[in-house]
Amino acid sequence: MSMKKFINDPADVVREALAGLAAAHPELRVDLDEQYVARADAPRPGKVGLISGGGSGHEPLHAGFVGLGMLDAAVPGEIFTAPVPDQILAATKAADAGAGVVHIVKNYTGDVMNFQLAAELADEEGLRVEAVLVDDDVAVEDSTWTAGRRGTGATLLVEKIAGAHAEEGADLAAVAATARTVNDRSASFAVALTAGTTPASGKPGFDLAADEIEVGVGIHGEPGRRREKLRPAKELAELIVDAVVSAKPLAGEPLIVLVNGLGGTPQIELYLMYAEIARLLTAAGATIARSLVGNYVTSLDMAGLSLTVCRADDELLRLWDAPVRTPALRWGA
Amino acid sequence: MSMKKFINDPADVVREALAGLAAAHPELRVDLDEQYVARADAPRPGKVGLISGGGSGHEPLHAGFVGLGMLDAAVPGEIFTAPVPDQILAATKAADAGAGVVHIVKNYTGDVMNFQLAAELADEEGLRVEAVLVDDDVAVEDSTWTAGRRGTGATLLVEKIAGAHAEEGADLAAVAATARTVNDRSASFAVALTAGTTPASGKPGFDLAADEIEVGVGIHGEPGRRREKLRPAKELAELIVDAVVSAKPLAGEPLIVLVNGLGGTPQIELYLMYAEIARLLTAAGATIARSLVGNYVTSLDMAGLSLTVCRADDELLRLWDAPVRTPALRWGA
Repeated sequence: MSMKKFINDPADVVREALAGLAAAHPELRVDLDEQYVARADAPRPGKVGLISGGGSGHEPLHAGFVGLGMLDAAVPGEIFTAPVPDQILAATKAADAGAGVVHIVKNYTGDVMNFQLAAELADEEGLRVEAVLVDDDVAVEDSTWTAGRRGTGATLLVEKIAGAHAEEGADLAAVAATARTVNDRSASFAVALTAGTTPASGKPGFDLAADEIEVGVGIHGEPGRRREKLRPAKELAELIVDAVVSAKPLAGEPLIVLVNGLGGTPQIELYLMYAEIARLLTAAGATIARSLVGNYVTSLDMAGLSLTVCRADDELLRLWDAPVRTPALRWGA
Repeated sequence: MSMKKFINDPADVVREALAGLAAAHPELRVDLDEQYVARADAPRPGKVGLISGGGSGHEPLHAGFVGLGMLDAAVPGEIFTAPVPDQILAATKAADAGAGVVHIVKNYTGDVMNFQLAAELADEEGLRVEAVLVDDDVAVEDSTWTAGRRGTGATLLVEKIAGAHAEEGADLAAVAATARTVNDRSASFAVALTAGTTPASGKPGFDLAADEIEVGVGIHGEPGRRREKLRPAKELAELIVDAVVSAKPLAGEPLIVLVNGLGGTPQIELYLMYAEIARLLTAAGATIARSLVGNYVTSLDMAGLSLTVCRADDELLRLWDAPVRTPALRWGA
């Protein structure tokens, strides 16, 4: 939650960071005019395209997940601001090889509206688009920026698993169905210890007392369920696991578990919390089949973390394990 | 620089985080009694072992770099505290397949002394150990915790490149020589916008005014060259690149460039700074052959970044590109 930042003009942060992404990753094609990031080899002949996007400030989501086995293109809006329809349309075209494009949309009002407008524009140009809504955050039913549940950490799982399905040649309906299955089987819950600071405001997005936490916080710092006193890691893990387990029964099927830092929490704390969370999930009768620990769906420099669990099956695990080669997620390729 | 942390007892942070690492990474063998992390398949028959370690708080360094093509074992001390000789000896034995073990030691007085004691103990037991000192930080000649230059970001490059050499069967002298070459050809320089907060103290490691930065900061928050006023990213990049270029001439050979976050700086700022730094390095006549942007050698939740450059050649680039499969660095495997 630093008020000090490595920036020039706050209005130029997203564009200048995209220039850095382009310079560091020649395997990506960054269109600085249309403001989207695509695989350099997109569109891939015969392959269903997969794109996602949303406000910036959640890096590496989404541009860090562009590459083999995951997204074909990503559309970063300004910080915490939905991308505009023209931008989404340009990325849709960049990802389209004639087999159609899946839009993975986190459930925020602005994103939903602008992806829908872009899909209509794409339809007018003869492209086939299937939109998949991600709404995994069980903290609140409606929120400041949302009708219905918010889309958070499960977005990574949806992009990875549906991306693998697209990579191996599944058709538009099948890739969209896989994406919806992953979302339906996932649940997330987050806790903030501090607020993140946007470049434009230069101050924390909300106020928390020195001994307070926001329970069920959103990835833009929007309010969760309640404020509580800070407690030991063991108790915070109980609070988080209880919230997820009471929303989704977990016993039985194998889980994919993501313990995700919100940006400002050191990795040593994330692993400490993973130990607590894994113990509690196992005690609740769950079987952890796969896990991922790190900063993947962030809120600038917010100190905090989210837990995402997905009730998988053999097929979803197979797709999770499939090769992926992106700036932020990479294995088997 | 959050005073709030996901911890239980501050004294248990390192051990509890190692338990989480063990739970999340079955491909690692974590010895919670001796407190080291090894490849589950170590020692590898015929292979020179490679170990490193130092105080915790710099994650993913070093335990996040244990795996194929990099370290055989890592020895985490308590936060910002050197590991003890017995611990280092245990890791040395875990990594030894009879072909000898390279100790990669960051140049801090406590680390140097304890790795040397461990090497003497190993020698008494008939193991061959070669120690390689990493001292890439050009900010200061001597410091609070160091005689000579501090070891920082180049440690990642030394571990990656020497690790690749060991993986392909080079002998003890050759692997140590490669490690020394990478260190000799590397230079680093860091800037802090805020101090990190240790779990034990619960407060920032040093005080910086709201508009001040520490120029040439160390990875434990130790003082650098001077305090200055915060400036735009362009000017901070100039300051950092100037410090590196004036210490190491860069024109001619291809560079490996690491823009490394110190823990609390959002990725969007790291990429923005990469754009500035890449432009300046190129303008100085350098050729950027490879790049890496992210949080790799951190100082808890310090907001800041370091630049490391290594003057490579075809052989070093080949070893950099070789397969690596660790929790924090992974490609080609």
